[in-house]
Amino acid sequence: MATYVNPDSARTDGVGPVHREVSPEQQAVEQRLVDNVIASFDACGDARLKELMVSLVGHLHSFIRDVRLTEEEWGAAIDFLTRAGHITDDVRQEFILLSDTLGASMQTINVNNQAYQAATEATVFGPFFVEDAPRIDLGDDMAFGAPGEPCWVEGTVTDTDGNPLADARIEVWEADEDGLYDVQYDAGKRAGRAHLFTAADGSYRFWGLTPTPYPIPNDGPVGKMLDAVGRSPLRAAHLHFMVSHEGARTLVTHIFPEGDPIGRKDTVFGVKDSLIKRFERQPAGTPTPDGRALDGTWSRVRFDIVLAPTGI
Amino acid sequence: MATYVNPDSARTDGVGPVHREVSPEQQAVEQRLVDNVIASFDACGDARLKELMVSLVGHLHSFIRDVRLTEEEWGAAIDFLTRAGHITDDVRQEFILLSDTLGASMQTINVNNQAYQAATEATVFGPFFVEDAPRIDLGDDMAFGAPGEPCWVEGTVTDTDGNPLADARIEVWEADEDGLYDVQYDAGKRAGRAHLFTAADGSYRFWGLTPTPYPIPNDGPVGKMLDAVGRSPLRAAHLHFMVSHEGARTLVTHIFPEGDPIGRKDTVFGVKDSLIKRFERQPAGTPTPDGRALDGTWSRVRFDIVLAPTGI
Ligand SMILES: [Fe+2]
Ligand SMILES: [Fe+2]
Repeated sequence: MATYVNPDSARTDGVGPVHREVSPEQQAVEQRLVDNVIASFDACGDARLKELMVSLVGHLHSFIRDVRLTEEEWGAAIDFLTRAGHITDDVRQEFILLSDTLGASMQTINVNNQAYQAATEATVFGPFFVEDAPRIDLGDDMAFGAPGEPCWVEGTVTDTDGNPLADARIEVWEADEDGLYDVQYDAGKRAGRAHLFTAADGSYRFWGLTPTPYPIPNDGPVGKMLDAVGRSPLRAAHLHFMVSHEGARTLVTHIFPEGDPIGRKDTVFGVKDSLIKRFERQPAGTPTPDGRALDGTWSRVRFDIVLAPTGI
Repeated sequence: MATYVNPDSARTDGVGPVHREVSPEQQAVEQRLVDNVIASFDACGDARLKELMVSLVGHLHSFIRDVRLTEEEWGAAIDFLTRAGHITDDVRQEFILLSDTLGASMQTINVNNQAYQAATEATVFGPFFVEDAPRIDLGDDMAFGAPGEPCWVEGTVTDTDGNPLADARIEVWEADEDGLYDVQYDAGKRAGRAHLFTAADGSYRFWGLTPTPYPIPNDGPVGKMLDAVGRSPLRAAHLHFMVSHEGARTLVTHIFPEGDPIGRKDTVFGVKDSLIKRFERQPAGTPTPDGRALDGTWSRVRFDIVLAPTGI
């Protein structure tokens, strides 16, 4: 069978030592290769693609040279990517999990959602958004039977000058108290998600669930990596928002309950101070804002959303 | 259906501009994230793994920040890796092709096969080695019917002090004149490959084929990448060697015919000056070294191999 074989598996002399001291001659050999690879993109007609490839190659080679990557480690990396590729399908995306757990997704979000005046900060999108969440009216319940403690969520959507944005579209989605999204039970199930539109004064309100922490899917290579480095697969508890309005930069974000012990240890690095909100737990029997009758405790949170303009 | 969605596909404001000017506040946000991600490996008990992950994360984040990676480009990268994962199977390894075409394989070889006195230089292993190539005796033909111009290959295997190495194991393999390896016709086919052992004086000789250029498999995402950047998928013509002997660093290398127009444009950056050899074409009718009767032209090449000691 023709296989790409890790050279080490065919070597009889085992894995060599990691060479920390690199002679000038050896440096020259390594740098010449970097220069050759970079020059191979000279004919690229797409200036942006060329910039991306040259930067990628530069960092990739610096990584290999900095750590003096062994052939066995190279083989382990190839094997990791191969396993990630094979576990990935329409409903499982291991490469995004990898990007998330290395902070690459969050860094991309940072780069593309630069701080602008008082605009609400963005965070990771995550894997559990679906396009066809049901529409609800203001004040309705987006849980649709998903188990958990009810949570009254309210706030406003404004621009950075404080003007209310009417008819802003708000998508909200979250896991149930068992840490699972609807689609993790059944791809066709819809619960714990909805979209709604702000009122003329920019206000919104709905019933959701008090967020709970949940692990990212950790039965694949990314889970193994987290385990090997002593990291938890848990995400800080959160409620997802995506808010859009004409003329505004679409905001993808979460809010995080204050006091969550996971907090800054969020395995995808999505927590930002400005997104931590006080979810106030209400004793059983406390009257609800809209007269909804509830047996047990419930919570409430306020999240005022400020959208940056487009094109900044 | 639950899918990880590229945030851009759900955004209504398109892809924002690439932000070239980054404010100190924005730099601080981005650096804080890098610091958080690096700190997440603090508890890793394996010092080498920790070193690898910290370096990887550092370079990955620098890449994203240096190029101001857009969310659309991030999505394209995830999609590329996903397609690479799905085309990869037991006989096709797209991640190794990617590593090869970015020079990462060759750089890993460089790092692990540092120059040592007159030791023969190493190059990439490639995807077409198999473990069970037939054994031949000195002077035998390793083509086993593979089409191409016959080539007489001879030389010695010595250590760096010039001592002959007897019974050194030499694995040789190459593509036929159509640019295909045996296993590309049929996983079970064996032709154009063999192993043999050096004589008591360290000498070896065998019949092979004059090497011809061939394309790497380019019907997948790596081929698309090469196409997009204006690079050829062709490898410089070559004959593979893997040479091992007790006490010696196993050598994985090729030799390349002088004058090959691909030469330094080898798509996997495997060519080194010291590995370019003169393959001397012999007119039809020229007597062969071992009295073999041949109708047409043939070529001959000498390759003296010097093995470094282990553990250097
Ligand atoms: Fe989530
Ligand atoms: Fe080859």
